Amino acid sequence: MAYDSVETPFGKADWILGGAATYNALASNFFDIDCGIVSVIGNDFKPEHLQLLKDRNIDLSGVEQVPDGKTFFWKAEYHNDLNSRTTLDTQLNVLESFQPKVPQHYTRPHILLLGNLHPDVQWAAMQQIQQRPKLIILDTMNFWMEHFRPKLDEVISNVDVISINDEEARQLTAQHSLVKAAAMIHAMGPKYVIIKKGEHGALLFYNNHIFCAPALPLEEVFDPTGAGDSFAGGFAGYLCQFENPTLENMKAAIIYGSAMASFTVEKFGTENIQQVTKAKIDARLKTFEMLTKFDIELE
Amino acid sequence: MAYDSVETPFGKADWILGGAATYNALASNFFDIDCGIVSVIGNDFKPEHLQLLKDRNIDLSGVEQVPDGKTFFWKAEYHNDLNSRTTLDTQLNVLESFQPKVPQHYTRPHILLLGNLHPDVQWAAMQQIQQRPKLIILDTMNFWMEHFRPKLDEVISNVDVISINDEEARQLTAQHSLVKAAAMIHAMGPKYVIIKKGEHGALLFYNNHIFCAPALPLEEVFDPTGAGDSFAGGFAGYLCQFENPTLENMKAAIIYGSAMASFTVEKFGTENIQQVTKAKIDARLKTFEMLTKFDIELE
Repeated sequence: MAYDSVETPFGKADWILGGAATYNALASNFFDIDCGIVSVIGNDFKPEHLQLLKDRNIDLSGVEQVPDGKTFFWKAEYHNDLNSRTTLDTQLNVLESFQPKVPQHYTRPHILLLGNLHPDVQWAAMQQIQQRPKLIILDTMNFWMEHFRPKLDEVISNVDVISINDEEARQLTAQHSLVKAAAMIHAMGPKYVIIKKGEHGALLFYNNHIFCAPALPLEEVFDPTGAGDSFAGGFAGYLCQFENPTLENMKAAIIYGSAMASFTVEKFGTENIQQVTKAKIDARLKTFEMLTKFDIELE
Repeated sequence: MAYDSVETPFGKADWILGGAATYNALASNFFDIDCGIVSVIGNDFKPEHLQLLKDRNIDLSGVEQVPDGKTFFWKAEYHNDLNSRTTLDTQLNVLESFQPKVPQHYTRPHILLLGNLHPDVQWAAMQQIQQRPKLIILDTMNFWMEHFRPKLDEVISNVDVISINDEEARQLTAQHSLVKAAAMIHAMGPKYVIIKKGEHGALLFYNNHIFCAPALPLEEVFDPTGAGDSFAGGFAGYLCQFENPTLENMKAAIIYGSAMASFTVEKFGTENIQQVTKAKIDARLKTFEMLTKFDIELE
């Protein structure tokens, strides 16, 4: 959980609510599920932001508030095409010494989503789970690959699903072909490999199956922050509906996650995903269906 | 119609059959349609290559053979990722003074495909058509945009469908967003705008409709030469089945064209598309369907 200051070609927003867990939880919680966060915040975390999450039935008993600490802060500027950004400031603050504590009533989750954070933290949280979840989903990124590869590999070898982008898949495997990269990642552990391609959608690899999800073609992306986190949250939340998620459920979950990401990028930070309704989600899912559906007639 | 010498990271092939019209025709002709080529060749054009096309019921009465000329020749080397190439030699030969002559029995086509060539040639061919086709489809590329823009714009303003890649759409409109680029190209004339994105598939824009076609995720692309031409040929051939092609037919045609392109890139030149059978096409179309089909269940 974090505060972010973000500048895009369309404007700037200072010290707004952010963080992987925040996006994960907000995007996951449009289903009748029990969603709980494990995270850390400082004494500067605004009560209204805690309330915002509680109002959405998100369990915060795993969120530690450090009395003499400050919340993680990140400041970045996106470049003109919004495909690249410059990080201007990173203040780890309470995250620096964060030891995740999983509350007792979280220790037998149906699905465990390891949000985009230090692999040590992901690993420590995983160790406290007392019964193997139906799915462990890992969201990670290039920074962790570059600096903490051995621990990240350990985490990867213990998860069912990994969600990374195309450049990260190439970095992780030194393979340019995404088909070959996915095969190598399968061999590292995850049965399901999701490779996100930004405006080009996402690919799901499972054994010899491949599924291609489109991205919603948008005139403009307003603020890409949190897109990957919203994708992972929506993906995990959707799958919570199913006792034993199948490949078909996974495909639909990727569309659902993509829809959640498409809402997030339309406004600054979590602003849009806070306002989303079931009706808006239904309409957007319909749009995704229209985007890809075809019937081919042959002689 | 051309001879090509191509080197890729996987090998090289010298003086093989190529050219937009060749790929267009081979990819279009898996339907019971009358397909005729307007093109030019030299005295070096091998009789077995003419026979190969005739065997597939492709009408060559519009192909002029210049007795004292040589066939267009192109030599290129693809770089490691196959997304870029260096042209090593271009010999225009008989193409330099080519004046297309449309045979009388071609002058009332159901569909006219303007293959990827000089806009002057495309324009001259169009002028000889005596009855407006149901669809005029334009395939073009960056080279013509850079050097012959005024004439190309004239061609564009008279066609129903344009097929270009993402970088070309950006170049044509000076818009980075493909949604905005497509809107500008609509305003230039074409009702249907196809933007090809290589390994990321293709987009079709029509009024406010967008359709996203996947590309087949391949372990390796063997030789990208002719992919765009095969796409355009397959697209046009598929649509010949329909008296009045609808948007739904267009979507399926893009999938069909993508399937044809996916065959072409698996081997050198036209080798693979020569060997394709209806059964292989059916299987590949099934694969494209599996790639994108999903059913979303909501509470």
